[in-house]
Amino acid sequence: MQDNGFEVTPWDVEGNVDYRKLVEKFGTEIITDKLKKDIKKQAGEDHMYLRRDYFFSHRDLGKVLKDHERGDGFFLYTGIGPSGPMHIGHIIPFYFSKWLQERFDVNLYIQVTDDERYWTGDGTTEEIESYAEKNIMDIAGVGLDPDRTFVFKNKEYMGNMYEAAVKISEKINFSVASSVFGFNSSTNIGMIFYPAVQMIPTFFEKKRCLIPAAIDQDTYWRAQRDIAEKLGYHKAAQIHSKFIPALTGPEGKMSSSKPRSAIMLDDSPAEVREKVMKKAYSGGQVTKEEHRKKGADLSVDVAYQWLKNLFMENDDRLEEIGRKYSSGEMLTGEIKEILAEKLNSFLEEHRKRKEDRGEELKRKMMYEGKLARRMWDKKVDLR
Amino acid sequence: MQDNGFEVTPWDVEGNVDYRKLVEKFGTEIITDKLKKDIKKQAGEDHMYLRRDYFFSHRDLGKVLKDHERGDGFFLYTGIGPSGPMHIGHIIPFYFSKWLQERFDVNLYIQVTDDERYWTGDGTTEEIESYAEKNIMDIAGVGLDPDRTFVFKNKEYMGNMYEAAVKISEKINFSVASSVFGFNSSTNIGMIFYPAVQMIPTFFEKKRCLIPAAIDQDTYWRAQRDIAEKLGYHKAAQIHSKFIPALTGPEGKMSSSKPRSAIMLDDSPAEVREKVMKKAYSGGQVTKEEHRKKGADLSVDVAYQWLKNLFMENDDRLEEIGRKYSSGEMLTGEIKEILAEKLNSFLEEHRKRKEDRGEELKRKMMYEGKLARRMWDKKVDLR
Repeated sequence: MQDNGFEVTPWDVEGNVDYRKLVEKFGTEIITDKLKKDIKKQAGEDHMYLRRDYFFSHRDLGKVLKDHERGDGFFLYTGIGPSGPMHIGHIIPFYFSKWLQERFDVNLYIQVTDDERYWTGDGTTEEIESYAEKNIMDIAGVGLDPDRTFVFKNKEYMGNMYEAAVKISEKINFSVASSVFGFNSSTNIGMIFYPAVQMIPTFFEKKRCLIPAAIDQDTYWRAQRDIAEKLGYHKAAQIHSKFIPALTGPEGKMSSSKPRSAIMLDDSPAEVREKVMKKAYSGGQVTKEEHRKKGADLSVDVAYQWLKNLFMENDDRLEEIGRKYSSGEMLTGEIKEILAEKLNSFLEEHRKRKEDRGEELKRKMMYEGKLARRMWDKKVDLR
Repeated sequence: MQDNGFEVTPWDVEGNVDYRKLVEKFGTEIITDKLKKDIKKQAGEDHMYLRRDYFFSHRDLGKVLKDHERGDGFFLYTGIGPSGPMHIGHIIPFYFSKWLQERFDVNLYIQVTDDERYWTGDGTTEEIESYAEKNIMDIAGVGLDPDRTFVFKNKEYMGNMYEAAVKISEKINFSVASSVFGFNSSTNIGMIFYPAVQMIPTFFEKKRCLIPAAIDQDTYWRAQRDIAEKLGYHKAAQIHSKFIPALTGPEGKMSSSKPRSAIMLDDSPAEVREKVMKKAYSGGQVTKEEHRKKGADLSVDVAYQWLKNLFMENDDRLEEIGRKYSSGEMLTGEIKEILAEKLNSFLEEHRKRKEDRGEELKRKMMYEGKLARRMWDKKVDLR
């Protein structure tokens, strides 16, 4: 779909995005203060992503909270397409999932879409396999509960899921699939089948499934929500984030294929600092004099946006930075230093967890943890 | 495709068929006397299906024979869609495969398309599973080599095949799939994926794959023949049979959904005799007097056609029957008695093998035989 200069399809997001329009367009709901309060109450604490409206939209989140309150529980589902190294934007949703998992004590399923990446032509079999292993190691670095998290590669796990894939795919016709995913007559038949594969984990449990993802993923789940109840399951609930702007500016999102536009998880502290100082799009003025007079435009300043949405926990400190930077008291170089430091401490912690326990966590989440063992022992058959 | 009053698509065959036109239409080749001689020489004996032109058309059969002569070998692939009980028309190709397997000492792969039958809406999961078990027992009754035959249900074996399915499906787009299979926008995305699944066994070995099937199946393999060499494999070779006319007449073929039009494998001798005597479409004349004068039209007489194509081994005896029946010397009741007797002795032998060794053969062909064990141990990955 193309509209008002911004384009949002499941495959591609570019342009400066008006989130309120997106909510209207997709027909999702804004996360209200009431809902935020309910989450805080049930979780026992707040999360900055919600407080700052980085996660800002949802479907059926109220029902998820009711299910949890009643003791019926729910489960989380997210995924990763292994076609390159991971950047900050890829890993953030896993950290949010970790918080949800800990606070609500729920299972988390992570689909590694090695089949879909092949169908989209994003690499050879060998390249995709190699990225899958690396990406899973990065997910291990998040420190998810290894007994409540199941990470599976579609190609490897399909033996346990095909019965479900057969039943789901029978319920979706080409017309629906192509309107949701933008297929046409030159789309390969693997890709056409993929919506069914992507949907399987929403039926892993009879409980309600909550999917944390950027809002452009919402369309993906339209077909699931159409058929779930016919199959005796719940419509997938969702909690939607905004897009993380690329380092180089608010016109689009980070991409592994443009590594200079993103902070990669394996960037060294010096690389991070250099990228931020040199590449981060600034809302500040061109000359120091002008900046002192006019101040910065926070709405397009990448350093400020990243701090606000993702890295600056402390509300007072954020408010102070915003005030000083927008008034011209703080210079671009200064706010960039703050971001570089935050990024490097985030990445250092991530890498340390990965080095210390990565291999063990990966093995457990994939094969040996409690949930993984249960999943390998069963056929997902929707009965 | 619809043309000249007969319709031949992979899903449906009806009407009186001109086989020579079909060969032209599909662009296949007639099995020449030279080829028949080569088969006889290499097989060490003749087969009546070839002698009588029941198997009458092919693709690349000459190459298959050359491969065999050179010692490179080949393998056989056929399948069954488990949506009902089997009739005579279903089991005949397995008997021909058995002969090919024995004479050429080759592996035979039998795909049970429990996924496809679900996608075509031919039953509930439970019905299809139940028919799959029964159909496989009937295949066991054929007495195939249990160490060189692998019978697999797609849903059960997909874990070993999905890697191949991913690679194959990437090479086929909706346009090609829909032109071959007649898909449209209301076709479900499982069915759209199915051409890739059906194709996988043609890549089970690096040798040439020979598919024995009725000629209407030819189109199925067009996409395989388009992509096989790109994947480093051979184009699937085929040997095509005519359609077995329904008991009730030459207008179409037998169908399990019209059990009175077919001889079912579990029909009792009395039922077989009654169906043949009462339902078999006759080329004879209405009154005895007229018949004695004009004789029978062999080309539409089901009893004669079945004897000629399938059940009367003895050439002299067939010639005698044809001569006497067409001249009016033999009556319809007499030729029907001959057919009923042949059918019942065929079915009795089949049932006896099934009762004596069916369970054992089924287990071996599916799981415990040499070939089955090898197939369960490996991933079909096209590498």
